[in-house]
Amino acid sequence: MSRSPGRKQENHKISRELFVLTYGALVAQLCKEYEKDEDVNACLDRMGYSIGIRLIDDFLARSAVKKCRSYSETADMIAQVAFKMYLGVTPSVSCNSVTGNEFSLILDKNPLVDFVEELPAERASLCYCNLLCGVIRGALEMVHLAAEVSFLQDRLKGDAVTEIGITFLRKPEDRKHRR
Amino acid sequence: MSRSPGRKQENHKISRELFVLTYGALVAQLCKEYEKDEDVNACLDRMGYSIGIRLIDDFLARSAVKKCRSYSETADMIAQVAFKMYLGVTPSVSCNSVTGNEFSLILDKNPLVDFVEELPAERASLCYCNLLCGVIRGALEMVHLAAEVSFLQDRLKGDAVTEIGITFLRKPEDRKHRR
Repeated sequence: MSRSPGRKQENHKISRELFVLTYGALVAQLCKEYEKDEDVNACLDRMGYSIGIRLIDDFLARSAVKKCRSYSETADMIAQVAFKMYLGVTPSVSCNSVTGNEFSLILDKNPLVDFVEELPAERASLCYCNLLCGVIRGALEMVHLAAEVSFLQDRLKGDAVTEIGITFLRKPEDRKHRR
Repeated sequence: MSRSPGRKQENHKISRELFVLTYGALVAQLCKEYEKDEDVNACLDRMGYSIGIRLIDDFLARSAVKKCRSYSETADMIAQVAFKMYLGVTPSVSCNSVTGNEFSLILDKNPLVDFVEELPAERASLCYCNLLCGVIRGALEMVHLAAEVSFLQDRLKGDAVTEIGITFLRKPEDRKHRR
């Protein structure tokens, strides 16, 4: 199942309902397989990571973005270009630390949960959309940015918004951020 | 994880790469779980069925199509409206039987396999896109059309095209087709 090197870059858009329902089937399958929410979350993150490290090529080719010069610019790029391109929504971005390496993407509307009303009581710790965190983490890693990515708030859990936290991990030998 | 009854119909399009990679992660997960290709195929078909019986509402609401008056019209609708809407491609349709209840959807290009070059040797019987068959079967059932849906040819297996066969099952008491 390796990627075809000769694949043409094309911009076909698809309707998101099929994606959202397919994603739901994936989560449901993992919930069947793993009893603990933590294991489902970890599996979704791993899957997302594998997707992110492949999706980044597509993103760079199609977005034709220039190199980001700061973590802040990178966070904006993820929100305004990547989320828009892949999910059709644009989260707002806030910086959460004086050190300038912690950001939140805040989604008023999470397209991945269109068909989900609420999590079942026995799945209260499930990060339903954890795949997204893995995707972001994987894609960032491919542009040499180590980051921790996790859900800080989730409307599915009764929070007012859905919030994804991104913490860029500074390396001692690389104080100036480069992409 | 029930569907929200108040969900607004919206037409956000998304980029298909994320979908294609997520679908790939789903198939890979099932391949980990089930040793036999037949079990993976059956699971994909079941998942697709569950998706189809939910997606049909979305399809009918958004396409605003009128009732189909024949199997032939129904097959054309699936190819020209549904495939176009959900996957951004339009298969060609051929009728395969004098009885007029067997059709083929022929895809020159299968968007779901964008990132897949070929099936691993040990997965030679895998119907990689079998979810689609389940989706079609489930959606048809919700408009009271029983059908068998399966892959007849698959480019991933070296065939010249990808061909999905749809056989509408006539009921003895319902010789005239109604939707």
